[in-house]
Amino acid sequence: PHTSWTDVICEGPDKNRPKLVFVNRSLTLENIKCYGFDMDYTLAVYKSPEYESLGFELLRDRLVSMGYPHEVLGYMYDPTFPTRGLVYDTTYGNLLKIDSNGNILVCTHGFEYLRGSVADCYCSVDEYYPNKFIQRDDTNRFYVLNTLFNLPETYLYACLVDFFTKSSRYKNCMKGFKHGDLFMSHRSMFQDIRDAMDYLHDTGTLKERTLKNLDKYVIKDPRLPVLLSRIKEVAKVFLATNSDFNYTEKWLVTNPKKLWRSYFDLVVVDTKKPLFFAGGTVLRQVDTDTGKLRIGTYTGNLQHGTVYSGGSSDIVCDLLDVRGKDILYVGDHIFGDILKSKKRQGWKTFLVVPELVKELHVWADKASMFEELKHLDIFLAELYQHLDSGSQECPDISAIQNRIKMVTYGMDLCYGKMGSLLRCGSTKTLFASQLLRYADIYSTTCLNLLNYPFSYLFRAPLVLLPHEAAVESQTKEQITELSEHVLKTSSIKV
Amino acid sequence: PHTSWTDVICEGPDKNRPKLVFVNRSLTLENIKCYGFDMDYTLAVYKSPEYESLGFELLRDRLVSMGYPHEVLGYMYDPTFPTRGLVYDTTYGNLLKIDSNGNILVCTHGFEYLRGSVADCYCSVDEYYPNKFIQRDDTNRFYVLNTLFNLPETYLYACLVDFFTKSSRYKNCMKGFKHGDLFMSHRSMFQDIRDAMDYLHDTGTLKERTLKNLDKYVIKDPRLPVLLSRIKEVAKVFLATNSDFNYTEKWLVTNPKKLWRSYFDLVVVDTKKPLFFAGGTVLRQVDTDTGKLRIGTYTGNLQHGTVYSGGSSDIVCDLLDVRGKDILYVGDHIFGDILKSKKRQGWKTFLVVPELVKELHVWADKASMFEELKHLDIFLAELYQHLDSGSQECPDISAIQNRIKMVTYGMDLCYGKMGSLLRCGSTKTLFASQLLRYADIYSTTCLNLLNYPFSYLFRAPLVLLPHEAAVESQTKEQITELSEHVLKTSSIKV
Amino acid sequence: PHTSWTDVICEGPDKNRPKLVFVNRSLTLENIKCYGFDMDYTLAVYKSPEYESLGFELLRDRLVSMGYPHEVLGYMYDPTFPTRGLVYDTTYGNLLKIDSNGNILVCTHGFEYLRGSVADCYCSVDEYYPNKFIQRDDTNRFYVLNTLFNLPETYLYACLVDFFTKSSRYKNCMKGFKHGDLFMSHRSMFQDIRDAMDYLHDTGTLKERTLKNLDKYVIKDPRLPVLLSRIKEVAKVFLATNSDFNYTEKWLVTNPKKLWRSYFDLVVVDTKKPLFFAGGTVLRQVDTDTGKLRIGTYTGNLQHGTVYSGGSSDIVCDLLDVRGKDILYVGDHIFGDILKSKKRQGWKTFLVVPELVKELHVWADKASMFEELKHLDIFLAELYQHLDSGSQECPDISAIQNRIKMVTYGMDLCYGKMGSLLRCGSTKTLFASQLLRYADIYSTTCLNLLNYPFSYLFRAPLVLLPHEAAVESQTKEQITELSEHVLKTSSIKV
Amino acid sequence: PHTSWTDVICEGPDKNRPKLVFVNRSLTLENIKCYGFDMDYTLAVYKSPEYESLGFELLRDRLVSMGYPHEVLGYMYDPTFPTRGLVYDTTYGNLLKIDSNGNILVCTHGFEYLRGSVADCYCSVDEYYPNKFIQRDDTNRFYVLNTLFNLPETYLYACLVDFFTKSSRYKNCMKGFKHGDLFMSHRSMFQDIRDAMDYLHDTGTLKERTLKNLDKYVIKDPRLPVLLSRIKEVAKVFLATNSDFNYTEKWLVTNPKKLWRSYFDLVVVDTKKPLFFAGGTVLRQVDTDTGKLRIGTYTGNLQHGTVYSGGSSDIVCDLLDVRGKDILYVGDHIFGDILKSKKRQGWKTFLVVPELVKELHVWADKASMFEELKHLDIFLAELYQHLDSGSQECPDISAIQNRIKMVTYGMDLCYGKMGSLLRCGSTKTLFASQLLRYADIYSTTCLNLLNYPFSYLFRAPLVLLPHEAAVESQTKEQITELSEHVLKTSSIKV
Repeated sequence: PHTSWTDVICEGPDKNRPKLVFVNRSLTLENIKCYGFDMDYTLAVYKSPEYESLGFELLRDRLVSMGYPHEVLGYMYDPTFPTRGLVYDTTYGNLLKIDSNGNILVCTHGFEYLRGSVADCYCSVDEYYPNKFIQRDDTNRFYVLNTLFNLPETYLYACLVDFFTKSSRYKNCMKGFKHGDLFMSHRSMFQDIRDAMDYLHDTGTLKERTLKNLDKYVIKDPRLPVLLSRIKEVAKVFLATNSDFNYTEKWLVTNPKKLWRSYFDLVVVDTKKPLFFAGGTVLRQVDTDTGKLRIGTYTGNLQHGTVYSGGSSDIVCDLLDVRGKDILYVGDHIFGDILKSKKRQGWKTFLVVPELVKELHVWADKASMFEELKHLDIFLAELYQHLDSGSQECPDISAIQNRIKMVTYGMDLCYGKMGSLLRCGSTKTLFASQLLRYADIYSTTCLNLLNYPFSYLFRAPLVLLPHEAAVESQTKEQITELSEHVLKTSSIKV
Repeated sequence: PHTSWTDVICEGPDKNRPKLVFVNRSLTLENIKCYGFDMDYTLAVYKSPEYESLGFELLRDRLVSMGYPHEVLGYMYDPTFPTRGLVYDTTYGNLLKIDSNGNILVCTHGFEYLRGSVADCYCSVDEYYPNKFIQRDDTNRFYVLNTLFNLPETYLYACLVDFFTKSSRYKNCMKGFKHGDLFMSHRSMFQDIRDAMDYLHDTGTLKERTLKNLDKYVIKDPRLPVLLSRIKEVAKVFLATNSDFNYTEKWLVTNPKKLWRSYFDLVVVDTKKPLFFAGGTVLRQVDTDTGKLRIGTYTGNLQHGTVYSGGSSDIVCDLLDVRGKDILYVGDHIFGDILKSKKRQGWKTFLVVPELVKELHVWADKASMFEELKHLDIFLAELYQHLDSGSQECPDISAIQNRIKMVTYGMDLCYGKMGSLLRCGSTKTLFASQLLRYADIYSTTCLNLLNYPFSYLFRAPLVLLPHEAAVESQTKEQITELSEHVLKTSSIKV
Repeated sequence: PHTSWTDVICEGPDKNRPKLVFVNRSLTLENIKCYGFDMDYTLAVYKSPEYESLGFELLRDRLVSMGYPHEVLGYMYDPTFPTRGLVYDTTYGNLLKIDSNGNILVCTHGFEYLRGSVADCYCSVDEYYPNKFIQRDDTNRFYVLNTLFNLPETYLYACLVDFFTKSSRYKNCMKGFKHGDLFMSHRSMFQDIRDAMDYLHDTGTLKERTLKNLDKYVIKDPRLPVLLSRIKEVAKVFLATNSDFNYTEKWLVTNPKKLWRSYFDLVVVDTKKPLFFAGGTVLRQVDTDTGKLRIGTYTGNLQHGTVYSGGSSDIVCDLLDVRGKDILYVGDHIFGDILKSKKRQGWKTFLVVPELVKELHVWADKASMFEELKHLDIFLAELYQHLDSGSQECPDISAIQNRIKMVTYGMDLCYGKMGSLLRCGSTKTLFASQLLRYADIYSTTCLNLLNYPFSYLFRAPLVLLPHEAAVESQTKEQITELSEHVLKTSSIKV
Repeated sequence: PHTSWTDVICEGPDKNRPKLVFVNRSLTLENIKCYGFDMDYTLAVYKSPEYESLGFELLRDRLVSMGYPHEVLGYMYDPTFPTRGLVYDTTYGNLLKIDSNGNILVCTHGFEYLRGSVADCYCSVDEYYPNKFIQRDDTNRFYVLNTLFNLPETYLYACLVDFFTKSSRYKNCMKGFKHGDLFMSHRSMFQDIRDAMDYLHDTGTLKERTLKNLDKYVIKDPRLPVLLSRIKEVAKVFLATNSDFNYTEKWLVTNPKKLWRSYFDLVVVDTKKPLFFAGGTVLRQVDTDTGKLRIGTYTGNLQHGTVYSGGSSDIVCDLLDVRGKDILYVGDHIFGDILKSKKRQGWKTFLVVPELVKELHVWADKASMFEELKHLDIFLAELYQHLDSGSQECPDISAIQNRIKMVTYGMDLCYGKMGSLLRCGSTKTLFASQLLRYADIYSTTCLNLLNYPFSYLFRAPLVLLPHEAAVESQTKEQITELSEHVLKTSSIKV
């Protein structure tokens, strides 16, 4: 019988885990002299949605303890709602899905989807964004929820807007909610959630709860030590994490067979990425017995098993005696790990995208929907065949356009309530653009490197530019039709 | 008999002119309420290479009159050398072709191509750029030669480096050339050429010479008034040019049948793009009899045939009563016209790329070379089929890699000495990345809009992400092979 | 018998406390509609040097617990060493006393004073600063120790440099100290002390210790409630402090007779000055029972006794319905309180300078030294009387110059080891320049406002410009002499 | 008989020229190893008001040729109106005299003086500036007219506002004037004047007219070669001017006895100050025969008589082998010459202030008015003698305050319609603050250096801080009175 796509790239006990590494830019693995790893969500993988739920609940409870109404406790994390990479508009409290140019693809207010020009209320996208466009540079107003750590927060923004919108005690305004003399601005709620988030991280509350129940929240994969050991035989290996030493130490104890530090030539904690890829900070040695920083800066040769704090990407290159282009850095943070290491230092980059498991499944399952989109396209093209700029005739395409919208929306829903991480119909998200631009290769997990020899040459698919594709991908028939169309319409009388 | 591709998209008397408009992002022409045009190289098209030669000679002569050696007069413009979008390194005097991340694709010093690690002299890319990478943000050091106006200048940088390198009077140094007490730094030569360029523009020397011999330098196309007339029937039209009124007036007299201003609802000169798309300047009325600015600012309703100076994109929207997303702006400057109008204002954009004529021809002619590249890829993939990260075996791929390099280089040369504007083998240039990112549609000329009805729906080709393509584009056989490969290699013993 | 100056401006039980408010710019108290106060060191006054000693010890102990050698515990706070307003050079570890233009007046390395061109070692000012000048704008390198809270830190910088310089285990380098593979850079020690400082504040360690022993560390002055009550009768009063609510609450319990909040029309905590005077933050209400922030923003009318958190100076003006020029703001922080409120908002300013007690005493006591400086000046002037630019004669003034240096140094030592807060001989410090420029009035304590009626007109002394003084202050005799000098010397033969 | 002050510091044929150099910060001339000079208004001194009148007329005529009404030609330059250092508010068209903190001292709209809260029209300072204060940092709005070259421009701003305000054709608005559909915004008029100014300088119109009639516009002083020759015997001398070579050459021909370049060790033209004191530009050699730049950069030793273009202050130090603190730089531009050389490079500075001639005369003549101010002060002080913060009594001081205002206004008018360059009553202007802060010494002309031997020690007057003055300058009687006052008022009952 026919093998489905999931059978092709997965197998055995973990049937749901795709095995491939995908390539945006060709990369000769043989030339890589050094592998670097981020820790959280890269080596230390959290169980989803358990971990997000934990984060959400801690965050929600913190807000209530800060004075938010007790009704908010009623909200539970819904993993089908948030998608990574959304943008929060701190002025209007909307969650936006945008493309790389700032065009708005999806806009929600609470759990309500806002549509184009709806005349009856101010709850239309037009009312908020008449140009359906935001100036993404205005980082004071727009906050990009880039990381997997942001997912609980993303959902909580929606919950709060939902609660206050529906609560009869509060009056809805454009910039927030009013209750007597009290004004709950979206900006102040944003600040409260950000503060609560910082509180959870600074006090270690989230980490503490995670460590208490490691089995529930963390995936232990016996293949990780295998991967690190194999890499260490052929290249240098380092860890560069923003986490502190104690958390790093505790987490990596999950691989008890061998002292975890022995897998790395260099371990750097407290890296303060993205600052790490620019000026960086002072490099300190960590006393691995006490977890405290040693005073002064270590200046001798690299000693195996030593742990450092701070530093910069330049210092890492010096200590390991490698150049940026010889490093493959593996991380999950599109901005802090991938964009910055690529743009500032010219490192090779491997983005870990756990959501790909789902993205690939939906894509394979819903191939027919995408096929339909393609056919609708060809059908549309044919309608205009005999027309040019002088034509008065105007084909009625509203039915096709509606169908395209319906199919697109249908595809979106297969991914979750905010749609795919990477696209909205045929349009790519900001996240997808950054993935294409800054990640040389990407996969669901770094463990998939196990499936390739260290001499492998990852070759990027030859993506054609539209004009090249116009030549290349047309079948003879299509070319002939097109030819006829153009011949007919280009005889302009001046 | 079979029609070749060039027959398909061209025809009749101007066989060499491709007719299509290409699409990066879907665009419903029916929704466009306003068309905006840049003038130079968009409406006013210059003959190539005659116009570039003129620019080069004026520039070269100016330098000699500034004190550069008379031998420099011996250089003539070679249209096969420069490609638009190169980056000049003012520190080392190299011309660089880079990708969007700053990786160096081609590097020339004078007319000499620099290669990777060559041990015998300092003329290797490694010596200059050990990481084969530049920090593109360092605009103080790296100057992007973005526009068609930059082509003569691009070639002159190469000429000067060539001259001084070969001259026995000068000693070669990393940062310039030495002759007795005199040091010709690359930076000072860069400054001299930029100053000479400004001189040509500020004094109007170039424009004067152009106007004197319009037939030689400017393409008159009778279809332009047709296009503008047709557009004006269905939408608003404006012109926004950085040129001053007098030059605009003189140039557009080339269409004598009708007062050119009557084709536009609004004409704005001295726009100072890209500033025009940010804060802009004060809007003034131009006295069309004298060409002088009127004092004060006009505040009444839009009057037909009035010419304005300065202003901003916001003012244009106000005067014409349109929103950014309803405007299609047609221009040739990737940064000043396209990137800025898109990123800051959310306008729809149409990039004019005259080089596409050649790009398309080469692409169609050399289809076989690209096919070979694809086959080499598949061949490479097969070599690694039975291997994973545990394999000791390392296939010898040097022969294939050499062949890939040769084919890539061969393709490059078909475009010109610095290769294609858009790619280097399978890698896209910075220019191509910006074209993909910021131009909704693009074509060789804006006249190609004539070939489409105003109700047209430009639909972007459905470009798949690599992981989607992995599912989609594989034939069943390839999938099966891949499946076998992965199945074999993923049985890891821990 | 003759009353000394200290008798004049002090009296009774607190003989040592000067009573006057000094005036830099005229100020009509009658026009002031609103008085604002900072808390720490303005209303809440700490006992010196007890409080600085406490800070020093906590800081020192923290460093040792971070890994600094135990010998450091041997250092005790010496109140005669540090002066406020010094600049720490994080590159070389020097403490610098500078004037407003960045000229170096005093330079110490540890406890050692560095002098001009000394040939035998690198410990001369010239070696570090060949131009005896620093670019003060380089805030990444130079850290200004502006506040009274910085005093313990200032002393600790000197202690660490002293310790490592003298320790035989460490080798002295320009940028730090070396011990085996360990390099103690001045920059890393600076970072350590700053981190320790933040630790003391963030964890509340210092505040906790202060509250435990209020009598030891805090001055209770029964005149404070009198002042606040009297002001409240004639104007609005607010408190704007960077401290949090709990500390503010606890500290102000020291005035138990009345609920402290009732003295103020408006209390704002967590102000984040200097940000408070620019954009500010969201204004929140504080729940005075729990100390927690209320959610949302209060928008109603000002309610007496309400405590707010955050906000901005603009919000304060709105809530109290006053304009910037009608506010007199009293604070001790030259940058965060005085410079910013003056420069950004045009507020009237009152700088509290506790050190003035000592400055005034020394000045009065050492009047004879200053008199000697003046006489030396007149003596110098006479030496040049008969000379002009054509003269070959060159008076030997080295003896006088030496005497001037000795007297200056002698005066300096009367103030403390780093000299006066405000001057070095006849040169004013950066701090003095800022005091003159940004503080309208200043005094040792805000309580001195008690000595003036609320209708008072503080008139600035009429400070003459040098050319005005040349006319004004010369006695007839001096003018005559000068006249003769100029007459004699200005008959130039051309 | 008694000699008046003007007799004291002037003499002989040029009775009106004060001879002294005034001192802000002590300066040992003997230590100066290098003297630098700006050219315009420093070495090349223009006749006032002839030169300003010429500038004004050219500027005015240019505006009319740009389209401004012909009535504007009726305005003639009035040297008694403008004062240097005023600030132009491009939003409201007002000329402001401010102090260093941005407080408004004088405000004019056209030729009309705006006063405080006047109820009947919007022409009161309060209407424009409710806080009587501007944020000087907002350089986009406020333009400081810092140089002597700005004087004609300053007057023209007032003329235009005067004209349009009075013209019956135009309607007055806050931000400009309206005439039918035309709006003359203050901002656009500002832009027009700035453009016209640039036109005069760029086309060389002003310089051409100056050179045509040198005797009318330029002061030839035979003492200048004497000064330069004498300096050259004892120190290095350089010229650093923003003018180009040709103008510099032509101007200095006014001293025909000797080739002017021989007076200098180094001549640098096109310096682009203030950029010269930061990064600077490429240093080029000037071909003194043709006036053209030589290509390349000269790297050999300093050759006498060579003229350079561009460069930076660092290069000057290198070429002349001196350190910043060994240079005395003499210039007339408070920002470009003095502030920048002092703040960025630590140079010693000599500010040339031609207006001092008048300032000194007025000061000497009107000594009695200043005396009256002082007596009014003492009188005021006595009124408050027996009062403290508890007093209900409130002395009526309105009569005295009015008298103070009248005397201040009277003094102001003696200087000119906008008052003194340096003060407004007892308040110092922004210009005076900058003079005090950044100029070590200052005088009406650099020629006054002739009156001092090169071994001179310029000693700054010992300016006391207000609290020091409180001790020092009081006579015994005053102290006693004060003592009584304080004793009486400080017995507070708590």
